[in-house]
Amino acid sequence: MKPAPAIACALVRSFGQGVRQLREARGWSQERLAEQSNLNRSYIGEVERGSVIASLLTVEKLAAALDISPAALLRHGEALYDANHAAA
Amino acid sequence: MKPAPAIACALVRSFGQGVRQLREARGWSQERLAEQSNLNRSYIGEVERGSVIASLLTVEKLAAALDISPAALLRHGEALYDANHAAA
Repeated sequence: MKPAPAIACALVRSFGQGVRQLREARGWSQERLAEQSNLNRSYIGEVERGSVIASLLTVEKLAAALDISPAALLRHGEALYDANHAAA
Repeated sequence: MKPAPAIACALVRSFGQGVRQLREARGWSQERLAEQSNLNRSYIGEVERGSVIASLLTVEKLAAALDISPAALLRHGEALYDANHAAA
């Protein structure tokens, strides 16, 4: 639950945005994702806001809940990051 | 630096194996990868052995040092995981 240092913020934030996007695409609340992933609801909120750096275990749990591979979940965040930076 | 719970061991271990494989493919020592990634040498050893769960920030640093995307680094570990399980 360490706060993200500034240097990592962009990608950590994009990862969180990716999680939120995939969750909302399923029409799931944070509560629902929390149940499916065995994570805490407020922790999910922090991950989505990019205010914590998730561990590989958290990535794995979220990916399993969202029914994609951990690599695919990261790639989704990277695509958002690239899109944000192409637009800037 | 929390030890990996048994449930996550297989994928965390495959991630570590992937890091080791890509490092060795470059002919790099753990010291060299530590310098390139701004991580501790002994921590790299633990990641490679799968005895710690890396954070997304560590994944990002290792990926940058190895000149691939974080998603590609995870996918490499997943491919090893699949290969190990197909062989078993």
